[in-house]
Amino acid sequence: MKEKPNVTVWNEFRHEKTDEKVQQVYPHGIHNTIADFLKTAGFPTRTATLDEPEHGLTDAVLDETDVLIWWGHMAHDEVKDSIVDRVQKRILEGMGLIVLHSGHYSKIFRRMMGTTCNLRWREIGEKERVWTVANGHPIARGVGRFFEIPHAEMYGEFFDIPEPDVLVFVSWFAGGDIFRSGCCWQRGFGRVFYFSPGHETYPIYKDPNVQQVIINACDWAAEHEKPEIAFGQVPEPLENIDGRQ
Amino acid sequence: MKEKPNVTVWNEFRHEKTDEKVQQVYPHGIHNTIADFLKTAGFPTRTATLDEPEHGLTDAVLDETDVLIWWGHMAHDEVKDSIVDRVQKRILEGMGLIVLHSGHYSKIFRRMMGTTCNLRWREIGEKERVWTVANGHPIARGVGRFFEIPHAEMYGEFFDIPEPDVLVFVSWFAGGDIFRSGCCWQRGFGRVFYFSPGHETYPIYKDPNVQQVIINACDWAAEHEKPEIAFGQVPEPLENIDGRQ
Amino acid sequence: MKEKPNVTVWNEFRHEKTDEKVQQVYPHGIHNTIADFLKTAGFPTRTATLDEPEHGLTDAVLDETDVLIWWGHMAHDEVKDSIVDRVQKRILEGMGLIVLHSGHYSKIFRRMMGTTCNLRWREIGEKERVWTVANGHPIARGVGRFFEIPHAEMYGEFFDIPEPDVLVFVSWFAGGDIFRSGCCWQRGFGRVFYFSPGHETYPIYKDPNVQQVIINACDWAAEHEKPEIAFGQVPEPLENIDGRQ
Amino acid sequence: MKEKPNVTVWNEFRHEKTDEKVQQVYPHGIHNTIADFLKTAGFPTRTATLDEPEHGLTDAVLDETDVLIWWGHMAHDEVKDSIVDRVQKRILEGMGLIVLHSGHYSKIFRRMMGTTCNLRWREIGEKERVWTVANGHPIARGVGRFFEIPHAEMYGEFFDIPEPDVLVFVSWFAGGDIFRSGCCWQRGFGRVFYFSPGHETYPIYKDPNVQQVIINACDWAAEHEKPEIAFGQVPEPLENIDGRQ
Repeated sequence: MKEKPNVTVWNEFRHEKTDEKVQQVYPHGIHNTIADFLKTAGFPTRTATLDEPEHGLTDAVLDETDVLIWWGHMAHDEVKDSIVDRVQKRILEGMGLIVLHSGHYSKIFRRMMGTTCNLRWREIGEKERVWTVANGHPIARGVGRFFEIPHAEMYGEFFDIPEPDVLVFVSWFAGGDIFRSGCCWQRGFGRVFYFSPGHETYPIYKDPNVQQVIINACDWAAEHEKPEIAFGQVPEPLENIDGRQ
Repeated sequence: MKEKPNVTVWNEFRHEKTDEKVQQVYPHGIHNTIADFLKTAGFPTRTATLDEPEHGLTDAVLDETDVLIWWGHMAHDEVKDSIVDRVQKRILEGMGLIVLHSGHYSKIFRRMMGTTCNLRWREIGEKERVWTVANGHPIARGVGRFFEIPHAEMYGEFFDIPEPDVLVFVSWFAGGDIFRSGCCWQRGFGRVFYFSPGHETYPIYKDPNVQQVIINACDWAAEHEKPEIAFGQVPEPLENIDGRQ
Repeated sequence: MKEKPNVTVWNEFRHEKTDEKVQQVYPHGIHNTIADFLKTAGFPTRTATLDEPEHGLTDAVLDETDVLIWWGHMAHDEVKDSIVDRVQKRILEGMGLIVLHSGHYSKIFRRMMGTTCNLRWREIGEKERVWTVANGHPIARGVGRFFEIPHAEMYGEFFDIPEPDVLVFVSWFAGGDIFRSGCCWQRGFGRVFYFSPGHETYPIYKDPNVQQVIINACDWAAEHEKPEIAFGQVPEPLENIDGRQ
Repeated sequence: MKEKPNVTVWNEFRHEKTDEKVQQVYPHGIHNTIADFLKTAGFPTRTATLDEPEHGLTDAVLDETDVLIWWGHMAHDEVKDSIVDRVQKRILEGMGLIVLHSGHYSKIFRRMMGTTCNLRWREIGEKERVWTVANGHPIARGVGRFFEIPHAEMYGEFFDIPEPDVLVFVSWFAGGDIFRSGCCWQRGFGRVFYFSPGHETYPIYKDPNVQQVIINACDWAAEHEKPEIAFGQVPEPLENIDGRQ
């Protein structure tokens, strides 16, 4: 039987220390809420946060991580470039990356995409309806034709990302916007998934459908084959058959 | 200066003969309304309809057509397979195809896609807001970040099409749905664009933004290179350099 | 543990009855050679052939088939359109389809693609080297950076197919050609894989790497989610929230 | 008539100063050889090199550049990050980028791709045959089904790039390799094309077919629509219709 992949949930973990409203929703931090439902679902899960040494993302931690979940919001700039380099390298070697909500503006997501990752937003607590548009994609397993989030922060187009390999979800917002809210990309040997629902004061990560999507995404993002032969800019050892000048 | 491509607007032209409500909106048929604004925009344009001999799509007509626009609704099954074969052949050789609204269920569109092209619908005259999601795509020229259609028939997901090469528009509907409303594909040497806004009793083809999109799509769909060498299942004339047994 | 999907191997089974050279390589038919290694790999496998009633592809057989493998060459036109309709319907509902070699010109493959599926070919028994170009794709598992087929029929570009969702393999031929030899597409809820290596007189389906690819493809093509809600052109049962005229 | 876009050809311009063999082939630098044939083709063209102030890529130069061509090899690391930031910003706003040969390993290309852009190589002067695999793509205009380069440096797979939006060329090498040698991507409002043929000691940029591809690519890369409305992470000015809590 296929083992469940090892997940590391990263959180900048700042709001939860200073903002009472956030503390009420996520008293132990968003990372622990996410880690809890992943553990329940059978994933060996650990957490890491910005203020730990090396942001909690040491080589040892990354070596044991199959899927990294990323949540950040107000302190993107405090993430050290050297750690971003390290995380990017691991993704290209095969680690999955799941970027949540305001993580769209994190250094690591912008690094993987090559674009600004800008978008528009509005925060009035409007209804979000998340529609599945990808034919039977594993990330959409169990959430039906659509699901609803009663109060959400609106994220709207134009979302400056490379065209997704597969567009899984598109969100409808009561205020008149749509958003490509679930997007898949392959980068190197790693898989990247962006999922926009989520917020620090709405209890979105306690929503069963949102949890199901993140669980599905962990399974999906870990499903890669290890490269069998190291690739790189090295002289070619193949016998040259017919290419003599 | 680049010449404007020749456009043929095909319409099954049945509603307009029998339904008074449709006659009021399109007294000369939807095809003529579309042809008129295309002519004004500088495209040499002709029309063709279901009840003409060979549905108006003779070899001679298709040979002179760079872009074919397709509107059908209630009589898809009356289109002869032999004509569908002929149109498909011309598309694969380089003719552009623009499929409008209920044309999603036409034989030619389902032939080009390989899927059912099913979707969901609701007709309550709700508002549609068409959002541009493709980065500076030529089909979105001049319509801004989004545009609105005050009263539209809703088309909703799941829309059973191959993942578009480029997704240009996604529509928001007041009733709670989203739809991939502008989709591009390459097939053979031809370009295919599906555009969902349109209806037989709402005056959508008189809307300046809708007209602009169709004009842009005609320019885009005609932009292919002629194949320089016929391709096909023929013996290979290349000298065999190194492949001797 | 995930169960192995049910595979049906379809063969037009004509060469093997009439051509002594083919009989020597595949005395029981190509379908049985393929079925044998799939059974060994743990797949519940059956076969079906052109001359059986309904070409062996009754509703009952297709209902129990998760992945259909297709081999045809000289009798594509004898496959009945009604059976092609039936197979297409099952694919769009979720059955996987693996098309081998000269099956590129079968009715079912051309139906799924919407294009001519033409290509060029040359038969001089030259060497084929199959390169993996897709980052860690499951279909490339276990075959390394490339593998070689000592004597193959050349298939060359231009190959008239829709741009693959993922291009897994590109073949190099000693005679000077390249070919997109492993291509993936999603169609409806089904997955389609085309794999060009294979021939009726070279023992290519006895090659361990070719077998590995077909085994991998069976696993991959069966990995879809069942649609949870029937889709189609039906009235929309959702409550209309905000869309009243 | 559509005006020809302004092109800037960037070259690190180091080989040509120190290596006699390179000087013989490109006495005025690779950039000037490229600029010369572009001027002849009607493009207003300038050049810029590494050792100029700001690498010749001031804001003023970039503001007037519609398409930037990039050639670098031995001094990628000397390109300042601040200039890479500036170039990336301009691409995302709509400037085209054409990256040639060893530019695959430049900071700007790796920045746009998000991957290592690693590949394999072999330098024995073998024959390269460049095959067109994209249906009637404008970049393949005029070069036929394939063209040959008599002596080339081999670039081989696995090439660590995101799956191209469109794969235009695949190269065959006499020594047994294939390579995705012409690849298109959209990033923000800009278009990116990578083209691998080229070398500092083989006279590849004097080859008429190679020149034709670069000319085509300049036309293609300049074809974007200016964003009509600034996008970004700003409050949403839309009237909120139905989203009240």
